[in-house]
Amino acid sequence: MIQDPYSLERTILESIPLARFMGISVLDYDGSRVALSAPLSSNVNDKGCAFGGSLASLMTLSAWGLVNLKLSEAGESADVYVADSQVSYLHPVWETLIAEAAADSGEDWDRFVADLRARGKARITVIAEVAAVEGGGIACRMSSKFVAKRSGL
Amino acid sequence: MIQDPYSLERTILESIPLARFMGISVLDYDGSRVALSAPLSSNVNDKGCAFGGSLASLMTLSAWGLVNLKLSEAGESADVYVADSQVSYLHPVWETLIAEAAADSGEDWDRFVADLRARGKARITVIAEVAAVEGGGIACRMSSKFVAKRSGL
Repeated sequence: MIQDPYSLERTILESIPLARFMGISVLDYDGSRVALSAPLSSNVNDKGCAFGGSLASLMTLSAWGLVNLKLSEAGESADVYVADSQVSYLHPVWETLIAEAAADSGEDWDRFVADLRARGKARITVIAEVAAVEGGGIACRMSSKFVAKRSGL
Repeated sequence: MIQDPYSLERTILESIPLARFMGISVLDYDGSRVALSAPLSSNVNDKGCAFGGSLASLMTLSAWGLVNLKLSEAGESADVYVADSQVSYLHPVWETLIAEAAADSGEDWDRFVADLRARGKARITVIAEVAAVEGGGIACRMSSKFVAKRSGL
């Protein structure tokens, strides 16, 4: 059961070997945004900056974690999986990777939970971003559709 | 210099720690398609099937590898990076992950190389897919824009 940032981090590290290798930790959760980080050293590419696969993995897990936290707050539990993602790699990341996830504008967690209760299945679009330290903009951005499904359906 | 499947595998494993952890190997290259594989054990998620981040990483590296191989065949060398990706996760993957990459239909490697020679920079869309063993369809699919840029530009 993923009911707080501590159990989110524990679940990610215990069940996903790649996340353990990446050195992922949960930095923060304020009820609508969750932030995950990973050191650059385990996540570099051939150019010495962050590997695209690591960035995509960190953004995917931050978004997946947020959906699980919101379900748990509503007293619900379901299988949560990513259906599709659009990722833009805008600038290289030369330091610790930090991904922050929040529901897309126009999305509503109450509606998401109501759909799950009514139909046993619900969808929501989550945005995850990695900030570019230099310049203060966005280094990469992911928009992903997540599906929650009651176990056994 | 990535001039054949062996040097592609060596470069990936030597320069990207995550790829080493994933256990990636280059299975095949026929001049237009390259196939990479990774064992399920290092790449599972909380449900026991392949983690989305591992699938995205393997597809990204197969496409990146293909672009490097085609450049090398043309006697060119350049920095190759992914600009954006669309990933569809259609079915879970319960066995060895195998990703195959090829240029998108309508793309042309000669045009890509000519653009690089003329402008020092070129773009190409590469499709990578992971087959679903059960049913014979596609488990996931990535369409990515890659950029090649002469070093130092």
